[in-house]
Amino acid sequence: MNPDGSGAGRGLITLVTDFGTRDGYVGAMKGVILGEFPRAQLIDITHHVAAQDVIAGAFAIAQASPHYPPGTVHVGVVDPGVGSDRRAIVVEHRGMLFVGPDNGLFSLATIPVAGESPTVAWTIDRLPPHWTVHPTFHGRDVFARVAARLAAGASPGEFSSGTAPPLRLDLPHPERANGDLLGEVIHVDRFGNLITNLPGEALAAGHPVEIAGSQAVAGTTYADVGKGRLLAYVGSAGYVEVAVRDGSAAQLLGAGRGTRLRLRHA
Amino acid sequence: MNPDGSGAGRGLITLVTDFGTRDGYVGAMKGVILGEFPRAQLIDITHHVAAQDVIAGAFAIAQASPHYPPGTVHVGVVDPGVGSDRRAIVVEHRGMLFVGPDNGLFSLATIPVAGESPTVAWTIDRLPPHWTVHPTFHGRDVFARVAARLAAGASPGEFSSGTAPPLRLDLPHPERANGDLLGEVIHVDRFGNLITNLPGEALAAGHPVEIAGSQAVAGTTYADVGKGRLLAYVGSAGYVEVAVRDGSAAQLLGAGRGTRLRLRHA
Amino acid sequence: MNPDGSGAGRGLITLVTDFGTRDGYVGAMKGVILGEFPRAQLIDITHHVAAQDVIAGAFAIAQASPHYPPGTVHVGVVDPGVGSDRRAIVVEHRGMLFVGPDNGLFSLATIPVAGESPTVAWTIDRLPPHWTVHPTFHGRDVFARVAARLAAGASPGEFSSGTAPPLRLDLPHPERANGDLLGEVIHVDRFGNLITNLPGEALAAGHPVEIAGSQAVAGTTYADVGKGRLLAYVGSAGYVEVAVRDGSAAQLLGAGRGTRLRLRHA
Repeated sequence: MNPDGSGAGRGLITLVTDFGTRDGYVGAMKGVILGEFPRAQLIDITHHVAAQDVIAGAFAIAQASPHYPPGTVHVGVVDPGVGSDRRAIVVEHRGMLFVGPDNGLFSLATIPVAGESPTVAWTIDRLPPHWTVHPTFHGRDVFARVAARLAAGASPGEFSSGTAPPLRLDLPHPERANGDLLGEVIHVDRFGNLITNLPGEALAAGHPVEIAGSQAVAGTTYADVGKGRLLAYVGSAGYVEVAVRDGSAAQLLGAGRGTRLRLRHA
Repeated sequence: MNPDGSGAGRGLITLVTDFGTRDGYVGAMKGVILGEFPRAQLIDITHHVAAQDVIAGAFAIAQASPHYPPGTVHVGVVDPGVGSDRRAIVVEHRGMLFVGPDNGLFSLATIPVAGESPTVAWTIDRLPPHWTVHPTFHGRDVFARVAARLAAGASPGEFSSGTAPPLRLDLPHPERANGDLLGEVIHVDRFGNLITNLPGEALAAGHPVEIAGSQAVAGTTYADVGKGRLLAYVGSAGYVEVAVRDGSAAQLLGAGRGTRLRLRHA
Repeated sequence: MNPDGSGAGRGLITLVTDFGTRDGYVGAMKGVILGEFPRAQLIDITHHVAAQDVIAGAFAIAQASPHYPPGTVHVGVVDPGVGSDRRAIVVEHRGMLFVGPDNGLFSLATIPVAGESPTVAWTIDRLPPHWTVHPTFHGRDVFARVAARLAAGASPGEFSSGTAPPLRLDLPHPERANGDLLGEVIHVDRFGNLITNLPGEALAAGHPVEIAGSQAVAGTTYADVGKGRLLAYVGSAGYVEVAVRDGSAAQLLGAGRGTRLRLRHA
């Protein structure tokens, strides 16, 4: 995968899981990686994805992964289907590899833009025969171990008999109604900011945003509105977000994933 | 300790504490380690062990540590007795070193199997005279600093005037009654899975497991049972665990550490 | 900044934020740093500073940073004023650099002692023209990126047109009354220990400490008092702290930031 050897030389492996940090699960994964590839450089993205919440995990990976250098291997384990017949996969996207279950977890991070070829996922189905795989802990026994090998320079094909398109999350799409744009909250961050499915380009100065019976002012940053006032802006992920200055929009509005909003056309 | 220098070359140091991650305590420990040994590679296992819960800390270390390469130094600080006369120790086990208080914290991770010599613990009682040790923060001033030196190639004997067997946690043992095996929950993980003290070998297909008035089906993975059904299986740590598919067994059963269970003999 | 190249060689970058660990924000910052400077060694101090609580962030940085080797770059992002006209700064203190908003976040960690020159802060106002800066995420687009460059050997002046004294937190000062010392709680740690603004030197054996209608015994470590008894001692940060053995002083006393205490003179 890295003809120039850059990935192998760097050895960057990031981790996103819903394992939490009270138990030894994450520590076990890290040990397996370092046992396979001692020069690996481990980066925690998050282990506090809500348990089994594939959408939240996909969002965290999509927020963080675009900023990593080519050759990085991203491991994602939010895996309610562990032990079932869901595929284990390796996805390649812009010189980075994503390793985990085929349940849509990487689908927000690996959307091809115009001109890029469709994303391909190797099926992980050819593990070395001496590997022991515990049926409830593929994070440790499959994904961590394969990721270590990939970071050390192995190619995905060494663990795979073929490829197939990966599953994609079926996120709600914005709709048009009388020229307005209707969307919904798809993620609430730690500050109570509401990340929506409305593309940032849709937001223009002066266009009011209605949500949960309130109206947000379109601006570019928190300082644009008074304390406690609602602000609609293009978030760092490229989507319209709604926040309240020095407070939590989720709390103020009683809003959460699925709360609808309307972006008025002028 | 590492005649081949492998430990010194790698410099892996893992951390398990109950310090949480809101304060600067863990950051101070890391700084001390890097000040002593700049090439150290720090790995967070967990800092969210419940405050002063030695059993939970011991469990996290036992889950994670077996997966690390020889030469790794594991620092554990769950230390209700800090400042008392409890020993500070270094334990060697399978080419790895464990540094922390002598309160049983390492006893689940360092159980010798048949043929291995009994575990030995060096008493840390000879610190360099210029080290300042704050009486409430041995994690920073003793354990982190000694661990850094060990990872850099020092031998435990440099900090010790002698050895003595380490304390062992007195975990409840399973009992036999009419051919059944009686045990109890010793740990609840972040998913609400119940880890018990029953050895995995005791679980055989078809043997029902009774817990908190309910019955669990013996299987190998979550997919073996329907949504919301109880499953008993051999967990990744080698013990019988009880889980509920797509839910929390702890919550469903109102179970926690100490909840009794019975594994019926046929 | 490092004529001997030690900082550049080491590449240590620590992170203190209030971003939490549920989202991809911290992971994005880490990716930006590693993209700029692949050999950077990232150290998490904490991402669980209470949202927008600059005092708590300043306290965490002051607890941890003094233990790091010269050349370390400390990034701090607790930044309620992001997008306003608050300065972005680089502060130098004892061979280390601190990068973040100019809101007092570094002021507890960079207090000059007698004989040291006053702390100076470079204003970050000359970013490379091709950098894109999102108005709500300076942590990723300004601080992480500048920190990576500094760790790689750049000097603060490359990003700055001049210096000015940094803002300092206006923490309450202890007062004298009839020879007694009056102070207050400025931080509560994860164990419920109360860190006060009374200097450690003020505490002498036998001097009672009154807080929230109770009296604490002056001692040096938890073992000095019986289970559940209040202890006053010099904490690892150099201030008088109040704790309860095997319990939470905050909970027992109903105390928190701002709770007053009196240190009796004999």
